[in-house]
Amino acid sequence: MSDILTALGDMLEQRKSAAPDSSYVASLYHKGLNKILEKVGEETTEAIIAAKDAERSGNNDEVIYEVADVWFHTLVALAQLGERPEAVVNELARRFDVSGLEEKASRTPK
Amino acid sequence: MSDILTALGDMLEQRKSAAPDSSYVASLYHKGLNKILEKVGEETTEAIIAAKDAERSGNNDEVIYEVADVWFHTLVALAQLGERPEAVVNELARRFDVSGLEEKASRTPK
Amino acid sequence: MSDILTALGDMLEQRKSAAPDSSYVASLYHKGLNKILEKVGEETTEAIIAAKDAERSGNNDEVIYEVADVWFHTLVALAQLGERPEAVVNELARRFDVSGLEEKASRTPK
Amino acid sequence: MSDILTALGDMLEQRKSAAPDSSYVASLYHKGLNKILEKVGEETTEAIIAAKDAERSGNNDEVIYEVADVWFHTLVALAQLGERPEAVVNELARRFDVSGLEEKASRTPK
Repeated sequence: MSDILTALGDMLEQRKSAAPDSSYVASLYHKGLNKILEKVGEETTEAIIAAKDAERSGNNDEVIYEVADVWFHTLVALAQLGERPEAVVNELARRFDVSGLEEKASRTPK
Repeated sequence: MSDILTALGDMLEQRKSAAPDSSYVASLYHKGLNKILEKVGEETTEAIIAAKDAERSGNNDEVIYEVADVWFHTLVALAQLGERPEAVVNELARRFDVSGLEEKASRTPK
Repeated sequence: MSDILTALGDMLEQRKSAAPDSSYVASLYHKGLNKILEKVGEETTEAIIAAKDAERSGNNDEVIYEVADVWFHTLVALAQLGERPEAVVNELARRFDVSGLEEKASRTPK
Repeated sequence: MSDILTALGDMLEQRKSAAPDSSYVASLYHKGLNKILEKVGEETTEAIIAAKDAERSGNNDEVIYEVADVWFHTLVALAQLGERPEAVVNELARRFDVSGLEEKASRTPK
């Protein structure tokens, strides 16, 4: 998974110097932080609604899709502010003491 | 980064069989999907407000912290629905054609 | 103000029997509750962002506009579920002990 | 309904000069705009989840309660920025041409 988030971070960097109409991400940067944050809020609402529907239907496809949209737009917002995906993952690692987690996981493999 | 999200997914799995009062995650599972989704919405609002403040202050610490909270609670929601972090990352890979991204990144290293 | 919310409630009722392409509200009903709730989430995000900008600029026009959008779309959602604006206002009255408030209002009529 | 929103606006004004620990609203003002906006986002999420549950159960009590919470916290935010409930209702009137609405309503009474 590491490579995917790293590659996504690279892509988000590269699009910063692209023409506004060259891609969806380039157009978001051009519209500015407010528009990007509106998308974050919009996609989160869609993810919550999709989760409620998944609870009922047992089909998780839509909620996975919408959560990916949430993560993606938070990464565009962070890129606009000068941060990379690694900052989020490192914060998660820091907070959940991931070295301990990995050790624990290796002792009780699933 | 891969190991961190994988370890986080393992931890979220393990907490499912833990006593409700043994950890924050175990208590969230016990409270149910609505409570978890409320946290997703709450943390997203905090991330958006933090991004607006970061735009002004130039300090991104708070927004990184809040985005990590958003990702974390979306993963708890997905775990409650039976999904792992890999599902989100694979969806991002699928959508952004990550093999192409990685190749491109290797040709234009940062 | 009473007449305005009552008239808005009447309009929302009337649009239920209108053709889907006859108005914005009729098209929202036709798209269904999920789409209406997505709009509620979207407009709330816009209101929050506008409030942060108003805090800085001192200009409240945008935030008033967006809050009106939030109220409007919550009323469309409630109409879809069979409720009128009066239900919200009565709940506010109940909660804030409106008898005292109403007494005061009757002494200083607008 | 008019009297209720006007009275609510008066109450929100009066609490501005109250001690922070004298009431919930006074404590919100004291915590500042970010905290008030967090509550707006939180209550909106709860309203959306309640609407999804109401869709299923046919019981609208919870969604009415949560929408009242949304309206209330948007009014606290507006009060913090120096605006009254009338600003929102007037914007709704302006946008939906309420004189026309009222005329129409009087021709087709419910």
